[in-house]
Amino acid sequence: MSFKQAEHKLLMIPGPIEVADDVLYANAHPAMAHVSPDFVPVFGKVLTMLKKVLYAPNSQPFVVAGSGTLGWDMVSTNVVQPNDEVLVLQTGYFSDSFAECLETYGAKTTVLKAPVGKRPSLDEVKSALKEKKYRAITITHVDTSTGVLSDVKAVAAAVQEVSPETLVLVDGVCSVASEELRLEEWGVDVVLTGSQKGLGCPPGATIVVAGPRALKAFESRSAPPPTYYLSWHKLLPVMKAYEAGSPAYFGTPPTNLIYALHQSLTTITEGSVSLEERFQKTKEASQKVKNFLTELGVKQLVADDLQQSNGAANGMTAVRYPGGLKAPDVLPKMAQRGIVLGAGLHKECKDEYFRIGHMGVSVVDPSRTDVDQVLKNLKEVLEEAGYKK
Amino acid sequence: MSFKQAEHKLLMIPGPIEVADDVLYANAHPAMAHVSPDFVPVFGKVLTMLKKVLYAPNSQPFVVAGSGTLGWDMVSTNVVQPNDEVLVLQTGYFSDSFAECLETYGAKTTVLKAPVGKRPSLDEVKSALKEKKYRAITITHVDTSTGVLSDVKAVAAAVQEVSPETLVLVDGVCSVASEELRLEEWGVDVVLTGSQKGLGCPPGATIVVAGPRALKAFESRSAPPPTYYLSWHKLLPVMKAYEAGSPAYFGTPPTNLIYALHQSLTTITEGSVSLEERFQKTKEASQKVKNFLTELGVKQLVADDLQQSNGAANGMTAVRYPGGLKAPDVLPKMAQRGIVLGAGLHKECKDEYFRIGHMGVSVVDPSRTDVDQVLKNLKEVLEEAGYKK
Repeated sequence: MSFKQAEHKLLMIPGPIEVADDVLYANAHPAMAHVSPDFVPVFGKVLTMLKKVLYAPNSQPFVVAGSGTLGWDMVSTNVVQPNDEVLVLQTGYFSDSFAECLETYGAKTTVLKAPVGKRPSLDEVKSALKEKKYRAITITHVDTSTGVLSDVKAVAAAVQEVSPETLVLVDGVCSVASEELRLEEWGVDVVLTGSQKGLGCPPGATIVVAGPRALKAFESRSAPPPTYYLSWHKLLPVMKAYEAGSPAYFGTPPTNLIYALHQSLTTITEGSVSLEERFQKTKEASQKVKNFLTELGVKQLVADDLQQSNGAANGMTAVRYPGGLKAPDVLPKMAQRGIVLGAGLHKECKDEYFRIGHMGVSVVDPSRTDVDQVLKNLKEVLEEAGYKK
Repeated sequence: MSFKQAEHKLLMIPGPIEVADDVLYANAHPAMAHVSPDFVPVFGKVLTMLKKVLYAPNSQPFVVAGSGTLGWDMVSTNVVQPNDEVLVLQTGYFSDSFAECLETYGAKTTVLKAPVGKRPSLDEVKSALKEKKYRAITITHVDTSTGVLSDVKAVAAAVQEVSPETLVLVDGVCSVASEELRLEEWGVDVVLTGSQKGLGCPPGATIVVAGPRALKAFESRSAPPPTYYLSWHKLLPVMKAYEAGSPAYFGTPPTNLIYALHQSLTTITEGSVSLEERFQKTKEASQKVKNFLTELGVKQLVADDLQQSNGAANGMTAVRYPGGLKAPDVLPKMAQRGIVLGAGLHKECKDEYFRIGHMGVSVVDPSRTDVDQVLKNLKEVLEEAGYKK
């Protein structure tokens, strides 16, 4: 048996993304006991490497079987308490869903809404923080539905200035390892993500990194977390044990995926391309995609002025169909050429745009020409569909 | 790159278990979009095949990223409501934990406790059901901590006789595809399991199959489920869509693991060994292990009289250390010989026994001699440690 990477369609959606061969191979690791002396240091090192990726040496990583979505549940049940006031910065579908998750567990959310393709301004954020005492603020670093990039550093600084007790909770599902995100230095309290985007693995792991203030918030809860599987009372001792080199049991960890994460995180933190260079290469790929679109006269979903102020994601681009074209003119045609792009997702305008992912191995591995292939074929497909600038 | 099955230690714990090469290979599938036309029928067929494994053509399967443990949460939040009375049949550590999970979400549990290595008798179950009106009863089909096999068919029949409105919730984590379990015919309402035991895959999928009465119980809830990620309001449309051949989105499914499940379930439901033959082969392997122990004068954790009445699991055996031996005399010595067995787990006696898993490919694939290797080496290890019958 051999791997058949070449035979599949090139996956260029904003997650799941292309997975490197060595990571796929690790995902096919022979079955291992979750408490075996061979597996324990692998899991332990995954936790340590996650802290490096988030620049969070004093924080606590959690890895459990689940999806990125389950990270919202973990934060909403452990860090936030029922009746807590939470300010949600809305930049698309996923910010709204995070709010819905928080509400499910009893938090009171105030959604600071931005028009599609925009983000709340810093002044709006500050005003909102002055109006009411918020226990926490949520930021969707990259909202996968719109491609809007939030300025986590600036928002966290604004929180520190206006309402320093407010916890800063970042949804990094579509940003971690693609966009710079410095948990401790920037004053972020929690970052949650999944395995299948910038971390370059198959989907199936919920990853949360909690800073010291988030852990304190958990410890000072007035009632136990309203969750069994996700309770940090259960998970903290397990994560600490693995990181310290001993096994512990609560729910079977996704062992094969942890081997995959180990491989991918080793590349990310110790490979020939440094983490900073990875961010840079992602930016360059993004610039190439966005310049190409501009030259073709094709608009993005992210508003023009926001694009000018670093408000468009580097790991993905949301593209408006140009010249009256629609999804059937583009997506199936690209698929026929062996390239999978993503459909629109935002309920207000999902038929008006499509999405290109450009992160991970597709932009970091110099032997791959994934982005060039996308652009070359997209140009041809648009032309075949009758589009002219 | 090639698979290196031979180089790893033989994994003979009661889950995770040995994974067949073709399943590992499927787990290394190139990255696929969770909504792609190539992936949709794969996920759909996984759902259909799960219904076959549980003899549940009219039931609803759910597959989400998670562990077996998360199945407790799914049932406790969707089928059971806060303040519901639930009768828990306790046969080990995992039954107790299921009760703890139910309590976390507000259910009132009554634990019908059995001594270690025993199970509540049918008379005890009936008496308990007569004493109080229970919304649900939980049965741990095989409690992995003790190896006790519950008689699901008989308990479900007793429920039908004494308290027919009571929902029958079965934890099948260590039984599905190893022990016969006929959801609809036996009057079971929910079976939950994970991917890493009888289903022969790596860990990482929470699998729940809900019968019509459980779905009705969900529909008639007085309040929404106290969960976001696991809410059937979110998951039902997604599962129905995939089974009907269309994509839908709520949380990214663990795509690679679903390819692995597809491969393994195809073998289980359409392979040369039928499902019924699989149960039979698992029984034969179990008998071989248990006869071997008896001949050596080594006791099991399951009480002798329960063993006589089909009360010991077929997919695993919990073995008491004989002749004053302890874990260090056996487990590391077996590991040195390339065989991984499981330590004890029940808090009352975890140092007094160890566990052997014998399910899945290890007992079904005629080209494998896994069980024989375990027994041969175990005999030698016991002798080297000074044990004599």
